[in-house]
Amino acid sequence: MKVFDKAVESRFDRRCTFVALGGGVIGDMCGFAAAAFLRGVNFIQIPTTLMAQVDSSVGGKTGINHPLGKNLIGAFYQPQCVLIDTNTLNTLPDRELASGIAEVVKYGLIRDAPFFEWQEKNMPKLLAREPNALAYAIKRSCENKAEVVAQDEKESGLRATLNLGHTFGHAIETGTGYGAWLHGEAVAAGTVMATDMSHRLGWIDDSIRKRVVDILKQAKLPIAPPETMTVEKFKNIMAVDKKVADGLLRLILLKGPLGCCVFTGDYEGNALDETLHAFCDN
Amino acid sequence: MKVFDKAVESRFDRRCTFVALGGGVIGDMCGFAAAAFLRGVNFIQIPTTLMAQVDSSVGGKTGINHPLGKNLIGAFYQPQCVLIDTNTLNTLPDRELASGIAEVVKYGLIRDAPFFEWQEKNMPKLLAREPNALAYAIKRSCENKAEVVAQDEKESGLRATLNLGHTFGHAIETGTGYGAWLHGEAVAAGTVMATDMSHRLGWIDDSIRKRVVDILKQAKLPIAPPETMTVEKFKNIMAVDKKVADGLLRLILLKGPLGCCVFTGDYEGNALDETLHAFCDN
Repeated sequence: MKVFDKAVESRFDRRCTFVALGGGVIGDMCGFAAAAFLRGVNFIQIPTTLMAQVDSSVGGKTGINHPLGKNLIGAFYQPQCVLIDTNTLNTLPDRELASGIAEVVKYGLIRDAPFFEWQEKNMPKLLAREPNALAYAIKRSCENKAEVVAQDEKESGLRATLNLGHTFGHAIETGTGYGAWLHGEAVAAGTVMATDMSHRLGWIDDSIRKRVVDILKQAKLPIAPPETMTVEKFKNIMAVDKKVADGLLRLILLKGPLGCCVFTGDYEGNALDETLHAFCDN
Repeated sequence: MKVFDKAVESRFDRRCTFVALGGGVIGDMCGFAAAAFLRGVNFIQIPTTLMAQVDSSVGGKTGINHPLGKNLIGAFYQPQCVLIDTNTLNTLPDRELASGIAEVVKYGLIRDAPFFEWQEKNMPKLLAREPNALAYAIKRSCENKAEVVAQDEKESGLRATLNLGHTFGHAIETGTGYGAWLHGEAVAAGTVMATDMSHRLGWIDDSIRKRVVDILKQAKLPIAPPETMTVEKFKNIMAVDKKVADGLLRLILLKGPLGCCVFTGDYEGNALDETLHAFCDN
C-alpha cells in the first residue's frame, strides 16, 4: 500500500517504470505493485542477493504474503529486464549467501546432474565468493530456470518442479514467522525432508540422499526443521499450500537417478506422515 | 482484503472459481481478487445492474479504487464467462437503470450512429423496462464493447474511446466522494462536458451537442456537474488520471459526424479551461 500511495501521490503515469533494487522480497513486492498499478506498468529487476539472482528475479512470479501463508496474493508478470551485478554479493552476509546456494543446489537435483557434480567440487570456491565460480553458478541457475519457465510459465506442471523442498520450507517459514529463518535455509531443510521421503518411497538410492545432506552441510545450511515445528504444525500449514488440489497435497519428489524428479500427489499417504515424524519430536 | 482472508481461511485451491454476483463494484473487485489470489484463479461475472451488463462485466478490466483516484489498482483479467439475466433488472432502482443508460448512449456516440438513433426513438421503452428493448440495448452494447476490446485489450489506443465522458466523470466521482453520484450519472455529466468541448473546438455541429443533451435529459440523467465541483477541483483530480502521459491529459472527444470520436491530447489548451469555466461557478 505504501508503494501505491507513493506512486499515486507522485502522479506516475502508465509510462513509468518500477525498479526493484534489492533482494527477493523487494522484487516480489515491487513486481506485484508494477503488475497492479494502473493495471500494469513496466518494471526492471536488479537483484542484489544470490537468492534473488539465481531464482526469484527470473520467471515473472510476483507476490506478497498473507498472514496465513506465503505468496498467496500475486501475479505472473514478467520484468522488462533483469540486471545482475555480482559485485553486490561482496557485502552480502554469509547466511544470505548460503541461502541462495540452497536454490543453486535445487537446480542440480531436479534437472542438471552435471551442475550438481560441479557444485560438489566447487562449493568451497562459492563460499569463498570466487567471482568466476559465482558467475558460473548464477548463469547455469538462470539458464535452468529460464528453460523451465519458457515451457510452463503459468505453472500447470513442469514449473512446479522448481519448488523442490519448498512445500516443507514454506511451512517452516510460516510456522516460525517470516524472517526467523531465511528462505533458502527453510528450503534446505525442506529439500532434506523431500529427499528423505523420496528415499522412504524407494524412489532414489541412499547414496543420493547422503550427497544431498553432504552438500547442504558443506554450505552450512540447516538439514532439519527447527525444534518448534511439530507434525501438527506442518500438516495445518501445508493444507493451504497453492499446490493442494482436491484436498490432495502434490509434492516435488526425487525419483530415479541424480537430476530427476516428479511432481505428484500419487504417493503412499503414510510416507509423508513417516517423514514428518522422523524430523519432528512431537 | 476480506475476500482474500475468506478465500485463504476456506483453503480454496487453484482450481476454485470466484463468482461475481452483483453490480460493477462487485465485478471489478471480485475480478481483481480472482486475478491476484494464488496468482490467478477462474472467475465468472453475473452482472445484476444495467451498468455492469452493458459495460463493466465485459472486457476484463478489473480493479479497486485508491483514496486519490478511481480504479488505480487492478489487472486486465478476462472472466471465463459473463452470464446476463435481464430479470435481475426488474428490481433495479430507477436511478441505477438510468446510470446504465449513460453507457448505452456512449456506444452510440463513439462508434454506432444507428444505435444512437434507435435509442432516441426507444428511450421511453428502455425507461419502462420493456424486456425486448432492454435485451436489444444490452446485446448491441456488448457487441460494440467486444469489438473494441478484441482489437485493443490493453488499451494502447482504441479502447480508450470507451471512456467518453469518463475523465470528467471520474473527477466528479472522486471530487464528490464515491457513491454520492452513481457512475453513470457522473459519466452523463462528463459526456455533456466532453461534447461541449468538442463543439468549442469546432469539431462537431451544434445539432449533435443538442441531441446529446436531449437524450440524456430524456433518461433523467444529470447534464452538468454538481455545484460543489470547482475548476480547481477538476484540474487537480484530472492530473492523476490514468490517461495522462508526459503531463498531457488525453481526452476522448467527438469529432466529425455522429458516431465518430478521437482520443487525443492535441487540442487547444484553453478549450479545456473554457469548458470547465462554462460548467463551474468558481
